[in-house]
Amino acid sequence: MLADKTVKEFLEETASKSPVPGGGSIAALSAATAAALTEMVANLTIGKKGYEDLQEEVKEVLKRATSFRNSFIEDIDRDAKSFNKVMDAFKLPKENDEEKEKRKIAIQEGLKNAASVPLEIAKEAYKMMEIIEKVVEKGNKNAVTDGAVAAMMARTSVLSALYNVKINLGSIKDKEFVEMLAREVEELEEKINQLEKNILAKVTL
Amino acid sequence: MLADKTVKEFLEETASKSPVPGGGSIAALSAATAAALTEMVANLTIGKKGYEDLQEEVKEVLKRATSFRNSFIEDIDRDAKSFNKVMDAFKLPKENDEEKEKRKIAIQEGLKNAASVPLEIAKEAYKMMEIIEKVVEKGNKNAVTDGAVAAMMARTSVLSALYNVKINLGSIKDKEFVEMLAREVEELEEKINQLEKNILAKVTL
Repeated sequence: MLADKTVKEFLEETASKSPVPGGGSIAALSAATAAALTEMVANLTIGKKGYEDLQEEVKEVLKRATSFRNSFIEDIDRDAKSFNKVMDAFKLPKENDEEKEKRKIAIQEGLKNAASVPLEIAKEAYKMMEIIEKVVEKGNKNAVTDGAVAAMMARTSVLSALYNVKINLGSIKDKEFVEMLAREVEELEEKINQLEKNILAKVTL
Repeated sequence: MLADKTVKEFLEETASKSPVPGGGSIAALSAATAAALTEMVANLTIGKKGYEDLQEEVKEVLKRATSFRNSFIEDIDRDAKSFNKVMDAFKLPKENDEEKEKRKIAIQEGLKNAASVPLEIAKEAYKMMEIIEKVVEKGNKNAVTDGAVAAMMARTSVLSALYNVKINLGSIKDKEFVEMLAREVEELEEKINQLEKNILAKVTL
């Protein structure tokens, strides 16, 4: 998988003229870094003097953050694969009407999937803000900026993933599907910047 | 260096209870991903029909973006090292007045460095917004969301790095130094969100 490459190689591949990994995979990576920082703050809080009452809560946060990290690492590939599927569909033969119809259906299915995957990433990264808020509010004060960085990385992951939903919606013919996803995109876009602001307002340096 | 680790290993290490790599290194990584996406959009524009007049400009953007990427990759380590230096200074002996004085100076020097490194990252990521704006405005339209993601990743890198400047400024005794850096932090914070907004306003889907 892509996360088995070195950071250097992964960035090199991103930079190349191949369209994957692209913005969607980077959105997933950004969410994974936010999860990792959340785990770090939790780890720096577990067993620390002054945080005795929070141990159970922080351990639960750590568990959830690790699970988010693993799932976002997989999403780096899922997004790239969903894009490749669309590209493959475009390459299908179109010699006769039957082939044309088949190709059209495959492209539309591919696009729906390529819109759904980043929407899921956006929703999950949005959900993760809850535990990020916890580590910022209650976690080790010495690591509060790491929590702040996690909040910003997760916000950026949400918005980045949503851009990748929107660009795919533009080519999808199924109006009902487009309207449903567009509503979800709009809702998340509206909420995420405010949520980031609320969390950062709790960071005292 | 840290970028020679696999993405998985790097995230695993970030998540661990060791404070490095932390938010500062993640800020550098985020800037490096922004650079890589900028390169990708440039690469997808070079030699493309409809973009004939822009070839020289885009090649120049590509060159600058690659140089940004390489330098941010080094910054992932630079930030981690600057933090470790502060930790090392704290571990210096303090048996007598001379040792105490030496230790105090080493800590203060370490902190100044640990504030200066992320400030440089923030400044460089801010500078990079200029070429990101170019690829969003003029680059391959099919990759415009990748440019948008680059803009958001760079913005988040700037703000993340600045948090790491601020947390170090809190412990630095040299008032003049603190005031000088605090002014730079404030200025960048004020400008970066607006700059991100301006670039995203140019993204048409």
